This record gives sequence, C-alpha cells and structure tokens, in this order.
Amino acid sequence: MGQDASLTAVAAAAGVSLSTASKALNDRPRVSAATRRRVVAAAERLGYVPRQGASRFKLGGTVGIIASDLSGRFALPIMMGAEDAFGLGAVSLLMCDARGDTIRERHHLRALVERKVDGIIVLGSVSNERASLSSMFDVPLVYAYAPSSAPGDTSVDSSHERSGRIAAEHLVQAGATRVGVIAGNPRVRASVERSAGARDVLMAADVPLVGSTVYAGEYSEQWGRAAARAMIARDPDVDGFLCGNDQIARGVLEVLREEGWDVPSRARVIGHDNWISMAEATRPGLTSIDMHLEEIGRVSADLLLRAIDGAPAPGRHTVESQLVVRGSTMQTH
Amino acid sequence: MGQDASLTAVAAAAGVSLSTASKALNDRPRVSAATRRRVVAAAERLGYVPRQGASRFKLGGTVGIIASDLSGRFALPIMMGAEDAFGLGAVSLLMCDARGDTIRERHHLRALVERKVDGIIVLGSVSNERASLSSMFDVPLVYAYAPSSAPGDTSVDSSHERSGRIAAEHLVQAGATRVGVIAGNPRVRASVERSAGARDVLMAADVPLVGSTVYAGEYSEQWGRAAARAMIARDPDVDGFLCGNDQIARGVLEVLREEGWDVPSRARVIGHDNWISMAEATRPGLTSIDMHLEEIGRVSADLLLRAIDGAPAPGRHTVESQLVVRGSTMQTH
Repeated sequence: MGQDASLTAVAAAAGVSLSTASKALNDRPRVSAATRRRVVAAAERLGYVPRQGASRFKLGGTVGIIASDLSGRFALPIMMGAEDAFGLGAVSLLMCDARGDTIRERHHLRALVERKVDGIIVLGSVSNERASLSSMFDVPLVYAYAPSSAPGDTSVDSSHERSGRIAAEHLVQAGATRVGVIAGNPRVRASVERSAGARDVLMAADVPLVGSTVYAGEYSEQWGRAAARAMIARDPDVDGFLCGNDQIARGVLEVLREEGWDVPSRARVIGHDNWISMAEATRPGLTSIDMHLEEIGRVSADLLLRAIDGAPAPGRHTVESQLVVRGSTMQTH
Repeated sequence: MGQDASLTAVAAAAGVSLSTASKALNDRPRVSAATRRRVVAAAERLGYVPRQGASRFKLGGTVGIIASDLSGRFALPIMMGAEDAFGLGAVSLLMCDARGDTIRERHHLRALVERKVDGIIVLGSVSNERASLSSMFDVPLVYAYAPSSAPGDTSVDSSHERSGRIAAEHLVQAGATRVGVIAGNPRVRASVERSAGARDVLMAADVPLVGSTVYAGEYSEQWGRAAARAMIARDPDVDGFLCGNDQIARGVLEVLREEGWDVPSRARVIGHDNWISMAEATRPGLTSIDMHLEEIGRVSADLLLRAIDGAPAPGRHTVESQLVVRGSTMQTH
C-alpha cells in the first residue's frame, strides 16, 4: 500500500499508549520529556513521518464530522477532542447529525463530499461495529467510537474489555469477595465486552458472581435499583457491585443506603463512564472508569490528518480507559 | 432601516408564541391548521415575508455556529435545533468551540468570516448578556441563549423570569403554603430572574419564603442537600421547594427521603431544565421546567436565515419555557 509505519506501531515500539504517542509527536502537553524522546526515537526508527513536517494539508482545510446521534452523551466530548486536535482555526469542522438515520447519514455524507471536504470523521454514538462507508465515498474517513466492520478502514475504539477487567481487578483489590455484575443493554458491544472482561478477572481470582451470571438490563438508575434488590435477596453476602454505567451504579448506591449498608466497608460499588455530574454527586463519590472520550476524538483527528496527508493507518486503534477512584470502593481522606 | 415586520410582531398579532409562529410559517409539525391560518393571516397583514418565498440563500450556503463552551449542557440541544431548522443538507454548519475564551472566540469568528460564511450563530453557554461582536464583523449574527447587550442585535433568549413564575404558580396550585427557594449561582442572570419571578408570585399569593429570602448557592446536588437541611431546621413546616435546577432538586429529594417526608403529600419539589437523565430517575419523578432549548436553536436559525435574506429582525426574541409535571409535585397515576 506504500504507506509508512502506523502510529500504533510507534506507540507499541515506544511502549506507550496510542494517545501518549500522538501527544508526544504533536507536542501536546502532559507528556514527560523522556517519553517524548522515546516516542520520537521509535518514530524515526520505524520511518513514521510526523504530520507537522510533511503536511500538504495547510491552513484552510475543511473536514467534516458526521455524528450518528449527537444527543447521546458520548458524541460531544469526542467532537470536542477532535476540534481541539485539528487546531485553533487551522481546520474548519463541518458538523452534521444523522440522528440515528442511515438515509440521513448518506445524505449528509454526500453533501460533505460535494463540498469537497478533505476528510470526514464518522462518529458513532453506540459502540457496536457499523457498516463501512468507505467504498461509497472517495474521501479519507476515520470511524470514531463505533468502529467500521471492514478491517481496511481506520477506526478508533475504546478498550471495552479492558474497562471490565480493571473494574473487576479494582473491586477485588478493594476487598470484594462476592460480586454482582449489573450490565446495561446486552445488545451493545461495549456491554458484552466489559462483562466478559470482568467475568474473566473474577473467575481467575476465584470470586463468585452473584447468581453465577451477569444481570443485563438497561442503562438506568431504575435498573440499578431493581438489580441490586434482586441480588441482595439472592445472596445477602454480596459485597461488590460492578455496574455497566454510572446511572446503574447510582441506583445501586441508593438501595444500599436504604438497606443501611455502609459503602465501601460493607459493599463496594463501581460505575462506568466517569460522568462527573453523576459520579461526584453521590455519597460517597462514585469510583468509575473513564473512556477518555476527548482523547478518542483527538486520536481520530490525528489519524484523519495523516490519511489526508497520504499516510493512512488502517486498522482498529484503541484508546485505553482508566480507573478513577472515589469513596464508593475505598476509604478516601 | 428598510426592514419588514419582525417575526415577533407576527407572533404577537396572531396571539401565539414566537416558536409557534416560526413553526407555522415554516410548515413544521405540531401546529394546528387553525393556528397556522391565523399566523399566516397576521404575517400577510403585517407584510412579513416568509423566508421560503423570497430566499436568495439557496442550497449550498454555509453558516457558522460558534459555541462559547460546548461542554455545558445547554449548547448541544440548541445546536441540534439549529441544525434541524437549517434543513437536511441545505446548509453547512461550520462548528467551533471557544471554550470560554474571548481571544479564541474572536479568532474563530475571523476564520469563519474569511471562509465567507453567510451568517453566524453565536451560542452562549451561560444566560448572562454578552458583549456585541456585530461592529467587528460584517456578517449577519444571531446571539442564542446569551443575548447581546446591544439592542440593535438579534438575540434569542429564554424566558427566565417566566420560568420562576410558572414554577411558583404550580407549587401554590399543588398546595404548598411555605416555600423554600433554592437558587443556583447568584451571578447568573437566569438565576436572578427566575428567583425574582418566583418571589413575585409567592408574595402575591401570600405564601411566605423560608427565611424570608432566596437561598443562592451553586448548581449541584450537594448544595440542594445542604440548603434543604438548613431550611428544614429553620422552618419545619416548609412544604414546597422551588429549585434552580434539577440537580439541586435531586439533592432536596434525597434529604426529604432521609427525613421520611412523603413527596408530594408532605412537601412538593420542583426543579428546572427538565434534564431527563435526572428528572426521570428520581423517586417520585421530578417536576421541572423545560426551556425548549432545541426551539431556541430553531428560532435562531430562522432569524439568521431571515437576516441573510436581507430581512433582519433585531431585538430580543424569547422562547417560552414550559412546565413538565411529574410525581414530585402532584400524585400521578
């Protein structure tokens, strides 16, 4: 394909995450000098051409972002991250919202292509794989959050399975010995992968799952409350709750409060998404997993600019999620 | 100024809200045939030229939306409403985010003007009046949510004072006789105007305010909990809580639950914003006020298109907020 080394290869060679590699090569803050040197060395060794040096995409370029559904909570931070990475005023963002409608999405895409955008970020609001659009439109595309099912496309994904693993590892470390796993919508890929990751870790640690299974429902406080009550009835010794998102976790916390169970000494609760308005409002604050959505946007923008510069990096790039500890799993001071 | 009748004048003449007038003239749904006829008749009488008939702004136009801070919860629905009103693919939206930074905002504006956008929506994330940009940029501008302080500019505002009034009227109707008013940030115009509207109604109805004053703090559940506790200590007969937003109201509901007070029979609680993830998750569901943010976006888009067509409607246009009743103020079935 005549393309040079991918950013993923550089990150792997330097032993850092994709985000860190991207930050280091683009002179963004929060990267130590030593890490930056290591990444630059890896890039040179592998023949990776950093965008700044070679760009034929100058001030005045236009990229499109087509969101499948802006009303979801995930789209906006990703879009903001992309806007940030494209740089202040250097690139114009053409924004449109398909509102979950495939016909509308194609229409918007066609309009963007007619307007001669240099590239497009296709932003999913749900983590499930989506059909590729690349054969229909002759313009560089990067799929953000909802990866394309075609392996030749460039997609940026969240580390859903890892999310489940680190949540379970943290609960075990925090002392949980019998864990209820309360997942959201079982038709959502993120939910399935997170539950699988969590189950693996719990089984390896010999920590039984309440009811020997994942309780899957929906992403709501109501479901969190219902599932927590069912689990307590089934196994009064449950002492850890691993929840599919922060709303579910909040419902669980409410039930535990009503039952008079102290959190975290009697039971530990972990959410997912690190939705600040939720996670910081509960008592105690809610431990959660942050997907770094803005970083997904930034990495998508970087990959799109590289593709526009003639150096695409096809495949699935993953931004790793991270644990954020608050009082619901460990005594904080 | 050579301009024709404003949409506001048409709405007033037809005895309908600005949103309804805009919907009726643009053939959008949820307007009765009778209302549509009345609005069209008023428009003809006043010489208002509906955009569709006269537009020189054809398929292929480009408008910019510059958001002062996309991360706030209000910007996105307004932006989606504007995108919707501009119509599917008819207009391209150039999106940028100033992230609360005036320098960044000017920079973005200059970039948009250089790209020869046909008009720009300046989208505020806080309700306070903002400085006009119109003398600096020779392009039609409409200010959404944060109105311009210059009366010659075109701004779309929310009916903050009305929000306070209808919340207080509803609490009184629901049987409240001693009301605690818990406001958010007192430096926010919306907060000040809502509190004033609520106070007027309560005084007129001879319903005393707990502590004879508005308790102003911040827009958080923590503040809602703290204020509710302080109010109950000060006046154990308080039986209504009028809250500056849904997060505050949620904090109040938690305290009432802990105190064993039944809602709504012992005390009624009303929030503001109608933030669905909050308002539908509480027990009982939270009565709230909806600002119709998408409608603010739609009206802004309509006014911008009119300005681009040479028929600006300067002044402050107001989209009226609306009560959404749930179980926290009245028994629902």
